[in-house]
Amino acid sequence: MDRILRINMGGDKGPTYKTEPLGDYAGLGGRALTSAIISKEVPPLCHPLGEDNRLVFAPGMLSGTSAAMSGRLSVGCKSPLTGGIKESNAGGQAAQVLARLGYAAIVLEGKAKADTLYGVVINKEGVVMAPDDSLKMLGNYALVDKLRDAYGDKIACISIGQAGEMKLSAASVAITDMELRPTRHAGRGGVGAVMGAKGVKAIVLDDTGTGVRRPMHPERFKAANKAFVKGLREHPVTGQGLPAYGTNVLTKVINDAGGYPAYNFTRGRFEGSSRLSGENQAELETGRGGNATQGCHRGCVIRCSGTYVDRDGNYITKQPEYETVWAHGGNCGIDDLDAVARLDRMDDDFGLDTIEMGVAIGLAMEAGLAEFGDAQAAVDLLGEVGRGTPLGRVLGSGAAVTGKVFGIDRIPVVKNQAIPAYDPRAVQGMGVTYATSTMGADHTAGYAVATNILNVGGAVDPLKPDGQVALSRDLQVATAAIDATGMCLFIAFAILDQEATFQALIDMINAFYGLGLTAEDVTELGRQVLRREREFNQRAGFTQTDDRLPEFFRKAPFPPHNGTFGVSDEALDQVYNF
Amino acid sequence: MDRILRINMGGDKGPTYKTEPLGDYAGLGGRALTSAIISKEVPPLCHPLGEDNRLVFAPGMLSGTSAAMSGRLSVGCKSPLTGGIKESNAGGQAAQVLARLGYAAIVLEGKAKADTLYGVVINKEGVVMAPDDSLKMLGNYALVDKLRDAYGDKIACISIGQAGEMKLSAASVAITDMELRPTRHAGRGGVGAVMGAKGVKAIVLDDTGTGVRRPMHPERFKAANKAFVKGLREHPVTGQGLPAYGTNVLTKVINDAGGYPAYNFTRGRFEGSSRLSGENQAELETGRGGNATQGCHRGCVIRCSGTYVDRDGNYITKQPEYETVWAHGGNCGIDDLDAVARLDRMDDDFGLDTIEMGVAIGLAMEAGLAEFGDAQAAVDLLGEVGRGTPLGRVLGSGAAVTGKVFGIDRIPVVKNQAIPAYDPRAVQGMGVTYATSTMGADHTAGYAVATNILNVGGAVDPLKPDGQVALSRDLQVATAAIDATGMCLFIAFAILDQEATFQALIDMINAFYGLGLTAEDVTELGRQVLRREREFNQRAGFTQTDDRLPEFFRKAPFPPHNGTFGVSDEALDQVYNF
Repeated sequence: MDRILRINMGGDKGPTYKTEPLGDYAGLGGRALTSAIISKEVPPLCHPLGEDNRLVFAPGMLSGTSAAMSGRLSVGCKSPLTGGIKESNAGGQAAQVLARLGYAAIVLEGKAKADTLYGVVINKEGVVMAPDDSLKMLGNYALVDKLRDAYGDKIACISIGQAGEMKLSAASVAITDMELRPTRHAGRGGVGAVMGAKGVKAIVLDDTGTGVRRPMHPERFKAANKAFVKGLREHPVTGQGLPAYGTNVLTKVINDAGGYPAYNFTRGRFEGSSRLSGENQAELETGRGGNATQGCHRGCVIRCSGTYVDRDGNYITKQPEYETVWAHGGNCGIDDLDAVARLDRMDDDFGLDTIEMGVAIGLAMEAGLAEFGDAQAAVDLLGEVGRGTPLGRVLGSGAAVTGKVFGIDRIPVVKNQAIPAYDPRAVQGMGVTYATSTMGADHTAGYAVATNILNVGGAVDPLKPDGQVALSRDLQVATAAIDATGMCLFIAFAILDQEATFQALIDMINAFYGLGLTAEDVTELGRQVLRREREFNQRAGFTQTDDRLPEFFRKAPFPPHNGTFGVSDEALDQVYNF
Repeated sequence: MDRILRINMGGDKGPTYKTEPLGDYAGLGGRALTSAIISKEVPPLCHPLGEDNRLVFAPGMLSGTSAAMSGRLSVGCKSPLTGGIKESNAGGQAAQVLARLGYAAIVLEGKAKADTLYGVVINKEGVVMAPDDSLKMLGNYALVDKLRDAYGDKIACISIGQAGEMKLSAASVAITDMELRPTRHAGRGGVGAVMGAKGVKAIVLDDTGTGVRRPMHPERFKAANKAFVKGLREHPVTGQGLPAYGTNVLTKVINDAGGYPAYNFTRGRFEGSSRLSGENQAELETGRGGNATQGCHRGCVIRCSGTYVDRDGNYITKQPEYETVWAHGGNCGIDDLDAVARLDRMDDDFGLDTIEMGVAIGLAMEAGLAEFGDAQAAVDLLGEVGRGTPLGRVLGSGAAVTGKVFGIDRIPVVKNQAIPAYDPRAVQGMGVTYATSTMGADHTAGYAVATNILNVGGAVDPLKPDGQVALSRDLQVATAAIDATGMCLFIAFAILDQEATFQALIDMINAFYGLGLTAEDVTELGRQVLRREREFNQRAGFTQTDDRLPEFFRKAPFPPHNGTFGVSDEALDQVYNF
């Protein structure tokens, strides 16, 4: 994994490619690598859909090894949604396969001629890029079926649906799971639109003839991995809650805490929450012959996913995540898990971010295009996106555009990115992360819910501003480091609570690369990533005024606690004081 | 004209009003007053459609007097289009009437309860604000007819059409002309959306029982006004070109210069320009029984407007301006003046900025929604806005949103405001104004065409960057000062070329108020206005990166000269170096 594959889509005679050593980027992986490349190579004021933007796919430092949980693929670019730097990562098989093929990153450069859509195939022999009009406007499911027919089922696919082809700002990049289904998505920030702008519909990865990446110190590596897995299994969140109920275990937890942003962020509890809960979801899945405990990539030991089937046992979608269930569910006043699963399937097929779409549909309901609670109307609205109608293109452009087009002045976004499933008035630490993350509103950028609500990594009162800035800062730094490793972020629960598990992670990296990193070195890596991202955003025109929540979070009390967001602007401006 | 009328639309028991002395704002008028109030009273990070924004209407220092050309009304707010401060001014009768009623400004504050629309009537007796659902979704023409029926024809109206009610970012504020038609518009920046958000459909002004404002030194004032008018009549632009052909005299001039942005800014000459020309327009108007030389307010001596009638001599609209003829004409590949007139009428009726709409429709054509040159398609697209369809709402949200929703990466906007009818690659001085104006891309903010093309105020090579920053700076300063006086900007042609006419303007102000201002004092007023506006924008998050043209102006050569925009970023950053 010591080469970068650069594919220039804009060549006069069609796309060309070359490989090169990592050079200045040596030692970086995942988000650390995507952000370094974007920061160095992309003009900060370029149009995100123009030829000067680059789209980078990077497995993490430990991807492709036998390390547990190391299957995240980072996707980076200048975001068409936020206008800032973007790294969105996803599970699925692609990171492992790409790493085994020896690539630390694929960089898509330039821009194909208008109306030409390419498929890219990468295997041990090299790279083939071929125009293929038969792929146009296929949904991700039909696309992957077609690719399976052509290339067999030992592949992993990175692809876009209709939304990416239409260059919509909520478009995701889909990555296939172990069942070769396009269910894992680099969802946030419109990375799929950038792939569409480059003119690439799908990247097929085939690691036939390659093997697992070999550590420099195999025994030490094996021992560290064993200790790491033990820690994950022993922690209540990663060993019990997530395997049993998936991320949707949070519906009950966040609703009980009064931090569940129901009906487009107007109240903190939803009367239909028990119908949407992870407990109910797991029972329903298993009762119908589905599966409530399943990994998304080889080497996953948490297995927070599952298979959602209909009443007849037919596959609909992977187990929807908590944020999806909230966005398409309670945020829109909808309490029907079957409807949520159908919406999740449509998002995956069209290639859309479920959070952005749920919030956009909630705004459409607020604007009077449909009634809150009308599941069929939500399905119809989302269907417009797949068909590319004007209304669909508005919704697919995300929450900020939807709010603007329909004249709404209460729009839950930061840096134009929709705010996820934890209201900043009742989970104040999340408000700090939303406001200050380089990514726009992003719960994964510094998951203060852990310490505000779950009592992981200590305890901070979720309703008070005290201690939230330090908490969010530390979490954002730690997350940036984890996102560089290729590790699933859910390892953070165990790492925050168990010193030995954190040490085991560091031991794995050291044993694999023959390094002597300390905990402080890893933290410093996280700080470097954030500094680089923030500096890019500043060159793109971001200031402290972009590190703010929409005004209604300070003005409108949020039931049941009836609080407002209380962290001062001055305090927010201290997050990057490191 | 020493009082401010404040109307709070957000009272618990309905709207309330009060009057107060000018206080800190004494001595300011027009844009100087609107920008001072917005800068001081509006939180720079508030949502433009929220209760904390304010909408200010201010006549100029000389409005309501017998000074020629003093009929401009400034409309100020935080812009929903640009996110920065906005002053958009228009002719028509309202400034004169408001000034005679004694108001230096009307300030709309707060926000009416949802779905309640008010009519406001202001006369010598006071102010009445009444909810009136019968006004809902009326176009400006039908609205004004209704108001005439209710209040007689001695009124002036300030109103919004459907676009303002829908809070679309391209919505204008309409002002009636001398024929009580809603043809004069504060078009740019979405000021109509803010009026809609406040819940005000129309403001009816009735100055019955008031008289012309009296100067402190009547004889000196009269003499100065006479000298001023003489200067205007002697200058070839204000004495001949504008009266004969209106602003559309520019179609031939700019096309000949290769600076006419045809087909969505892809080439600098339009093959249909002679059909669109002011010469052809005037002949057509007079031949059909219309009128090619007409003022828009009492006291106008330039009379650049006219009456556009159909083949049967029936009124369609006022004589469309050059920028309108370009935006709906050559920019969309359309060479049919009747179609342009129809689009102009629709814009005025719906209450929309003609520049923003023409550029948005051009982008829709580029996105493939219609063919360039298809006039009926343009009419149909604009019709969608009036009906409030999703597509119409996209277009009515302006060029930037339209480009984003349809995935276009070549969008001619600065600070999200559409670039007008002079391409920065062939009229480089305009590029400097577009890039650096506090208003977003605005030709009126510093009309470098004068010196780049018309040889007014000297001569600067339009194809070269040399001298453009100093030119644009001086023009922006002078414009800000003129916009404070209530004077029509077209006086600038005479002022730039004739020292005596500039002195006559200063003499008028001095004679009216009993002051002893010098030319330097007036210039310093302009600088103060710009500094205040720029400081607001900085607090709203604007940086030097917002003072840039879209990248394609530097990258794509523009026929026939095939140049690109050559003023460096470093030079642009010197515009505010005063």
